[in-house]
Amino acid sequence: TTGLQMSKTLALTVLACLSFCICVCRAEDSAMENMVTERKVEDNHRQDSADLLIFIMLLTLTILTIWLFKHRRFRFLHETGLAMIYGVLVGVVLRYGIHVPRDISNVTLSCHVNASPPTLLVNVSGKFYEYTLKGEISASEISDVQDNEMLRKVTFDPEVFFNILLPPIIFHAGYSLKRRHFFRNMGSILAYAFLGTVISCFIIGLLMYGCVTLMKQVGQLNGDFFFTDCLLFGAIVSATDPVTVLAIFNELQVDVDLYALLFGESVLNDAVAVVLSSSIVSYQPEGDNSHTFEVMAMLKSFGMFLGVFSGSFALGVATGVMTFTKLRDFQLLETALFFLMSWSTFLMAEACGFTGVVAVLFCGITQAHYTFNNLSPESQDRTKQLFELLNFLAENFIFSYMGLALFTFQNHIFNPTFIVGAFLAVFLGRAANIYPLSFLLNLGRRNKISSNFQHMMMFAGLRGAMTFALSIRDTATYARQMMFTTTLLIVFFTVWVCGGGTTQMLSCQHIRVGVDSDADNSVKGSERRSTKHESAWLFRIWYNFDHNYLKPILTHSGPPLTVTMPACCGPLARCLTSPQAYENECQLKDDDSDLILTDGDISLTYGDITVSTDASGAHISAGPAGTTSAVISADDLDRELTYGDHELVMRGTRLVLPMDDSEPPLADPRHRMRM
Amino acid sequence: TTGLQMSKTLALTVLACLSFCICVCRAEDSAMENMVTERKVEDNHRQDSADLLIFIMLLTLTILTIWLFKHRRFRFLHETGLAMIYGVLVGVVLRYGIHVPRDISNVTLSCHVNASPPTLLVNVSGKFYEYTLKGEISASEISDVQDNEMLRKVTFDPEVFFNILLPPIIFHAGYSLKRRHFFRNMGSILAYAFLGTVISCFIIGLLMYGCVTLMKQVGQLNGDFFFTDCLLFGAIVSATDPVTVLAIFNELQVDVDLYALLFGESVLNDAVAVVLSSSIVSYQPEGDNSHTFEVMAMLKSFGMFLGVFSGSFALGVATGVMTFTKLRDFQLLETALFFLMSWSTFLMAEACGFTGVVAVLFCGITQAHYTFNNLSPESQDRTKQLFELLNFLAENFIFSYMGLALFTFQNHIFNPTFIVGAFLAVFLGRAANIYPLSFLLNLGRRNKISSNFQHMMMFAGLRGAMTFALSIRDTATYARQMMFTTTLLIVFFTVWVCGGGTTQMLSCQHIRVGVDSDADNSVKGSERRSTKHESAWLFRIWYNFDHNYLKPILTHSGPPLTVTMPACCGPLARCLTSPQAYENECQLKDDDSDLILTDGDISLTYGDITVSTDASGAHISAGPAGTTSAVISADDLDRELTYGDHELVMRGTRLVLPMDDSEPPLADPRHRMRM
Repeated sequence: TTGLQMSKTLALTVLACLSFCICVCRAEDSAMENMVTERKVEDNHRQDSADLLIFIMLLTLTILTIWLFKHRRFRFLHETGLAMIYGVLVGVVLRYGIHVPRDISNVTLSCHVNASPPTLLVNVSGKFYEYTLKGEISASEISDVQDNEMLRKVTFDPEVFFNILLPPIIFHAGYSLKRRHFFRNMGSILAYAFLGTVISCFIIGLLMYGCVTLMKQVGQLNGDFFFTDCLLFGAIVSATDPVTVLAIFNELQVDVDLYALLFGESVLNDAVAVVLSSSIVSYQPEGDNSHTFEVMAMLKSFGMFLGVFSGSFALGVATGVMTFTKLRDFQLLETALFFLMSWSTFLMAEACGFTGVVAVLFCGITQAHYTFNNLSPESQDRTKQLFELLNFLAENFIFSYMGLALFTFQNHIFNPTFIVGAFLAVFLGRAANIYPLSFLLNLGRRNKISSNFQHMMMFAGLRGAMTFALSIRDTATYARQMMFTTTLLIVFFTVWVCGGGTTQMLSCQHIRVGVDSDADNSVKGSERRSTKHESAWLFRIWYNFDHNYLKPILTHSGPPLTVTMPACCGPLARCLTSPQAYENECQLKDDDSDLILTDGDISLTYGDITVSTDASGAHISAGPAGTTSAVISADDLDRELTYGDHELVMRGTRLVLPMDDSEPPLADPRHRMRM
Repeated sequence: TTGLQMSKTLALTVLACLSFCICVCRAEDSAMENMVTERKVEDNHRQDSADLLIFIMLLTLTILTIWLFKHRRFRFLHETGLAMIYGVLVGVVLRYGIHVPRDISNVTLSCHVNASPPTLLVNVSGKFYEYTLKGEISASEISDVQDNEMLRKVTFDPEVFFNILLPPIIFHAGYSLKRRHFFRNMGSILAYAFLGTVISCFIIGLLMYGCVTLMKQVGQLNGDFFFTDCLLFGAIVSATDPVTVLAIFNELQVDVDLYALLFGESVLNDAVAVVLSSSIVSYQPEGDNSHTFEVMAMLKSFGMFLGVFSGSFALGVATGVMTFTKLRDFQLLETALFFLMSWSTFLMAEACGFTGVVAVLFCGITQAHYTFNNLSPESQDRTKQLFELLNFLAENFIFSYMGLALFTFQNHIFNPTFIVGAFLAVFLGRAANIYPLSFLLNLGRRNKISSNFQHMMMFAGLRGAMTFALSIRDTATYARQMMFTTTLLIVFFTVWVCGGGTTQMLSCQHIRVGVDSDADNSVKGSERRSTKHESAWLFRIWYNFDHNYLKPILTHSGPPLTVTMPACCGPLARCLTSPQAYENECQLKDDDSDLILTDGDISLTYGDITVSTDASGAHISAGPAGTTSAVISADDLDRELTYGDHELVMRGTRLVLPMDDSEPPLADPRHRMRM
């Protein structure tokens, strides 16, 4: 009860501050008219501070409430849902609670230039003022611009979301991909993320086109709405973000494969949706009739999709790989370097015309796979915590802004027909993604995706930060404004209803919770082992390459290249191998040289394992010294991924018990060879 | 040698990237002319990404080189000095290496409005474009604006430094104030910081006014230069930032009192300089003759100084105190809340018209004193590391930008007479601060500031980030531009020459290095004890109040208020005391009730100690359970500060050995009472 009381006091304090800073805003506004121009810039700054303060107070309030919820173990509302509620409340206050005098300081100049330069110098009675271009404004918006300064002030530049808030979220997702279960279900995840997103995009696009055509005939449409707009809408709402669901899965220890499927899909389909939408926007057939179907433009768009995606992918992987830190002794430098490299990936991709967000995602995955192993244990903690914090702040900021935008955004177009149509289309699009693909995948999978898992995945198709950022990016035309409003409602509905009903859905679908990974393994251990042998052959080829060549080059661990490479490449191999790997090798030769043997079919390898148990918080780095040589098998592969798995823990909560199915690496190699 | 080779490779890679992104800039620039307006905004974004990339690459390069220096134990160049060198190199390349075609896209509009609105709508042949006000431009600058777009692009908005980069630096300084030695030398530090900075400001201002008057008579001056400008220059260059010197002190374990004096002075005089300069700027006598001396305006400025300073101080302390986290179980929430509260302090101060930087400084000091004790150990680490990283990045960014600005800033005015005069004035100003004040302080101090310490403090008057941020804030007039150029040169000289010569100066002044705090204590232990008794009486009154009332209210530790408050305030005391403090009390009553005694002269208290040794990295939280009751004495006071001291370590390097002069808290209370 003391906690409750305390938090009430705190919440009241925060509310007081909130109203205080709203008052500051008001005072600023009314005093603004009779001030000299030079002070206006300064006042703008104070105003901006007050606006930002509103958001920070919102976040503070969210944090305090969330603490209360976690304290009391309420699961019906996730922090993101809560941030939205608070955002809506503040939005209502800003919209209706505050009367703002009509701002008369905006002036429309008509001039005879035939281009709009990025910088404008205005000669006002002898003094020159510099103006920078903010963007084009449609004729309908002009009255709004002059109308409510206060609401415009709390409206951020849409690009802020894409360039500042989204990158840490996406990077964190990539950096915390649970590698073992992710790789085990790689095929299915890729299918859902790529094929599924494209299917969903086109299904939703087509359905919405039908809906729009219908509306046009009934006369409900007051502006243009082309097929490309419908497709864009499909791409935008195809990016799922089941952050609420995953948090609950984490807490309740739901089946790890289901978790991996959902998380992996949601991470990758964000990337697909971004590139897809930018390709659709760039779809511009030649000539005047710019909204008909044309094969060439279509192919160009498709080529652009592939180009941008692979470019961003390559760039992300390249910088991820480049971050080859040897600064283990100076953790601050190491962490700073890691942070800067991740950021420069984003900037580099943007400067090249690729998609920074996608590059950052793959940079994160690569860094988790290679660079993470090179970091000192302290830097591993630091980077994890840093990106966790950034992710937390950015995510909650976006969601509370969403709540705010419902009331402060000036150009909402609520069209009931369109909204109902969109909800139906989103539902059908998700269904067309999950069920047919699951059926096809189950043909190839031994470890079938059961129907209750499919229903759960269907249900967990929440929309979140990425969908919002994509839809707010451009709200210039009638179609885009209607899309933005509808998208906002879809996000609200899915986060509150689907997110809030996760526990009910889990029990309704009889999905086991509290799955102890240990028990799980003992039950279907043998089955799982054979599954892997059959399904993951493509992956195993890649794994062998990764383990024998990439890991030794890019990290200090792994077998020395002098062993894995053909003899002719000796000098090159010696040059590329880290000295630590040699030490490793010497040790191995001394200890268990009798275990090293060559096999025609399966290549020779050394198991390198970095164990870190997150349960106790202590690090037990088995490191190079504790490793042994072993013949690679699906079993080893699985074990290594298992160990790697524990290094990254999502949202501070542990998903699986550490050291779950670990036979010690040294245990009876002969037994393994019999397999 | 492998390390050297490796870092060479890395440096080459980074250089390649750097040249790559400069090429991108170029390509962008040349392609810009024949593009449609709507795409220009997008291109601007790509351009901005490339520009930012230059800085990130610069930082990366700095980090790699610094790693090399630390690896090889080079001490002649600190990371900030290095960042400046790289900045200068890139600045030269940008200035002379790249030919940029004359940008013709800037248009000057002459219009008949008599005010410059914050937002401008321009009607360009039917389409409306929105422009935002960036600021006034003096007539002389117009040609520059139209001249070199590339150089303008890498020039940041000066407010970025003040509102984004400076706050984390200042907060970190406050948060990492070494509390024990800081409090022990509080009086001297306050004297140097307040009196000293004001003296230095006026001395430099007067000397520069003499210099300027001379220049006017010789005809070297091409513009106005008023006395207020001279005073402003004095205020700007009075902010010292001996980050280089302190880093070396840390490494060499120089005397802790000298360290505390230098660090404390530099932290506080930043705050004084900021408020002083804003007061000077606001000094505007009534009437037309706006640059004469006037008592009223002077008093108004002085009142403003007091108002802004105390307002910022109060706000900072208030939010610092408000951050009363009870979220110990959820470290992520705790860290996020802590971060947000610090940031909101800044924004709140700015919104109220106070100085955010000053508020943030005192917020940091307060949080280190109170809030830090409420945090969970993990959050203590997290917040320390987070602000350490932010400080590192911001600091190096500012210094590399300084290097860049030497060549890319367009309005440099190099005036040799002014520069020589400024160097002399800065030297004399520093001398007028240190020597007379040290003489006066030594009259009151038992632990005298010896003359070699005084010389060292004189020598360590480096100028850094704050001086730069203040001088770049406004470069509109002739006087300001000349001041900016000169300030830049002063920073360069002091960082490179004084910073680089620190080790030489130390040995030249025969200042002992490698001072083991243990030895230090055994030598002058008794002397120190009596020193405190005499000199710190004011401080002890405050300390008693703090320990008996503030700490129990604001943290979970300390004696319950029910004990320390008079009986009549019983209910209030019960309400304000944290339940944990009661547990504490119960335990104490059980364990050592015989030790609790009242003394008419010295008030009763409970020692609460949180020990954390940073040497081993492990946390030994003695916490409430390990505490005992003891009669407060100067000795206890000192011990408590000692323990608190180890919690905060600056720049990851340990200054004093942990647990230096620790008699165990339980050891023989009777002995202590005899004192």
